Amino acid sequence: MVNELNEMMATMIPAVEQDMQSLLHLHNSIGPDETDPFYGMMQYHLGWVNAKLHPDNENTGKRIRPVLCLLSCAAAGGDWQKAVPAGAAVELLHNFTLIHDDIQDNSDKRRGRPTVWKIWGAPMAINAGDALFVMSNQAIMDLVEHFPAEIVVQAATVLHNTCLDLTRGQFLDMSYEERNDLGVEDYWPMVAGKTAALLSACCHIGSILGGADESKQDAYRSFGHALGMAFQVQDDILGIWGDEAITGKSAASDLLEGKKSLPVLHGLSWGGKFAERWWQGPIQPDEVEALAQLLANEGSYEYTHGMSRQMTTLALDSLREADPQGEAGEALMELANKLIKREQ
Amino acid sequence: MVNELNEMMATMIPAVEQDMQSLLHLHNSIGPDETDPFYGMMQYHLGWVNAKLHPDNENTGKRIRPVLCLLSCAAAGGDWQKAVPAGAAVELLHNFTLIHDDIQDNSDKRRGRPTVWKIWGAPMAINAGDALFVMSNQAIMDLVEHFPAEIVVQAATVLHNTCLDLTRGQFLDMSYEERNDLGVEDYWPMVAGKTAALLSACCHIGSILGGADESKQDAYRSFGHALGMAFQVQDDILGIWGDEAITGKSAASDLLEGKKSLPVLHGLSWGGKFAERWWQGPIQPDEVEALAQLLANEGSYEYTHGMSRQMTTLALDSLREADPQGEAGEALMELANKLIKREQ
Repeated sequence: MVNELNEMMATMIPAVEQDMQSLLHLHNSIGPDETDPFYGMMQYHLGWVNAKLHPDNENTGKRIRPVLCLLSCAAAGGDWQKAVPAGAAVELLHNFTLIHDDIQDNSDKRRGRPTVWKIWGAPMAINAGDALFVMSNQAIMDLVEHFPAEIVVQAATVLHNTCLDLTRGQFLDMSYEERNDLGVEDYWPMVAGKTAALLSACCHIGSILGGADESKQDAYRSFGHALGMAFQVQDDILGIWGDEAITGKSAASDLLEGKKSLPVLHGLSWGGKFAERWWQGPIQPDEVEALAQLLANEGSYEYTHGMSRQMTTLALDSLREADPQGEAGEALMELANKLIKREQ
Repeated sequence: MVNELNEMMATMIPAVEQDMQSLLHLHNSIGPDETDPFYGMMQYHLGWVNAKLHPDNENTGKRIRPVLCLLSCAAAGGDWQKAVPAGAAVELLHNFTLIHDDIQDNSDKRRGRPTVWKIWGAPMAINAGDALFVMSNQAIMDLVEHFPAEIVVQAATVLHNTCLDLTRGQFLDMSYEERNDLGVEDYWPMVAGKTAALLSACCHIGSILGGADESKQDAYRSFGHALGMAFQVQDDILGIWGDEAITGKSAASDLLEGKKSLPVLHGLSWGGKFAERWWQGPIQPDEVEALAQLLANEGSYEYTHGMSRQMTTLALDSLREADPQGEAGEALMELANKLIKREQ
């Protein structure tokens, strides 16, 4: 079987990159402008230039979100090429949140390079994030070139509602850091905003632009939502017991960071020896391996894996209900499997 | 003559407040939610609650921007009541920029109260600003209830382009702080983004919703732009030689803050005794009065006043060209005069 996904990604991603680069004045012919260094910060974050603003194309992200959006469009029966601005919109939105996240989390590095705030300072980075958000809005409005205005308003409304979910999820995430009374039930609303909302919007917007009827749109939206949940739960598993070679971050790094991920919340609710140690203060590198084992012994690995399986089943059921068509449909199934079976 | 402006403001502002409060879940009936404190931060910034999130209505802003928008709509022949969501959108957008500005400028106070970041910390404040931006986008899409989708897309596009101007202006403003090579010509692109872009968008969007044809829309847009420029130049004059009773801030406070306002840029270009003193380091309270006098003696007062008159003339010419109708037209003229003749 031909690898549909790789083939489609190889045509979709460059189209989205080009659309974003045009909004971001990369290779523009407008001539030098006082705000060029400002565009440069955003170009740097997107991986097109290095910190000196010289060309560099090593550190772009995986662009999963636009691919999900465009595949959903095509699998719902639409022409993905017309939906490219929507792909740009979701990717720009995602990157706006990353720039602000890095300030909020005080993170020095992203994709192996210094973060925007680390190079240009927080005030400039806040503003660069705001501008990527603006460009996401501009991109979604650009759909009007190929779609009726009613459809554009519908897609934009989904995008805006999603943004609100993102900020609510971010609020919960930040406020959880200081709380000691959290249970596993507090995990889902936070992850719904932080991860699932945007993946859900990608599939939902794609299906709208593909001409899906309302019940199909619902199926695409549910697919994206469950996919996001499953993906995050997987990420939590890898963050504690995972394979460094796959994730690029050391296993158990979530324990060192004190991240209240699903396995940790389960362990805290369990109230055993893991919880006892957790409440004594920050975990040190030399105890990480034993604590990961302890957490597994207390049932958190099994519990989290069970939730991951539930979410995965939900995602694949929703995708079958969406009944994605053609090569894009096969590629979408392939992408889903790839995203939620990362440990294999 | 009846005071049209006050009468219209007294009906318009409550309508906009209600629309914003509905987006911001004030007095909602949804029941308690984990994200209530998050909405609380935004409600606080908008002046509806105090820092303990108890009702308070003393510190809302003047809501000039929605009034400009709704008056432009009515004066162009439209029904301002249908345009209320656009009024909410421009006010929410303005307030999003204020929350982020306060972090960027390290400002402790706004309208006599502690700033959002001062109370809840910068990470939470960044997120609260982002959410107000989202709600501005949601508000502009809400226009679809009363307007054809094509018109909504047109209005949203103006709003988004304006946001980009705002971030570019903010970039210039922040980068100017560190530059020593600025002349008066660098002032205009910065102020065009920081102040004029949004006032211009208010009038432009209002005229679109009022059904103005393209040449009338241009006139409204130019009016708002020149009004914003004139307003900012006035503000610069008051910031150095102004009347504390009118502005609520002490005259010459701009000198203490080292703000590169138009009179200062003129003085620096002049290269006289004022410039000599400026480059020696921060200005102290006891030398402010003498330096303001020195700056005036070197021609900066006259120069800045001249620019203010030019911009005012441009604004009023554009407004005449827009040919605003009825009571709203009179009120718009009144508001323009009020905004740009504040020193009298």
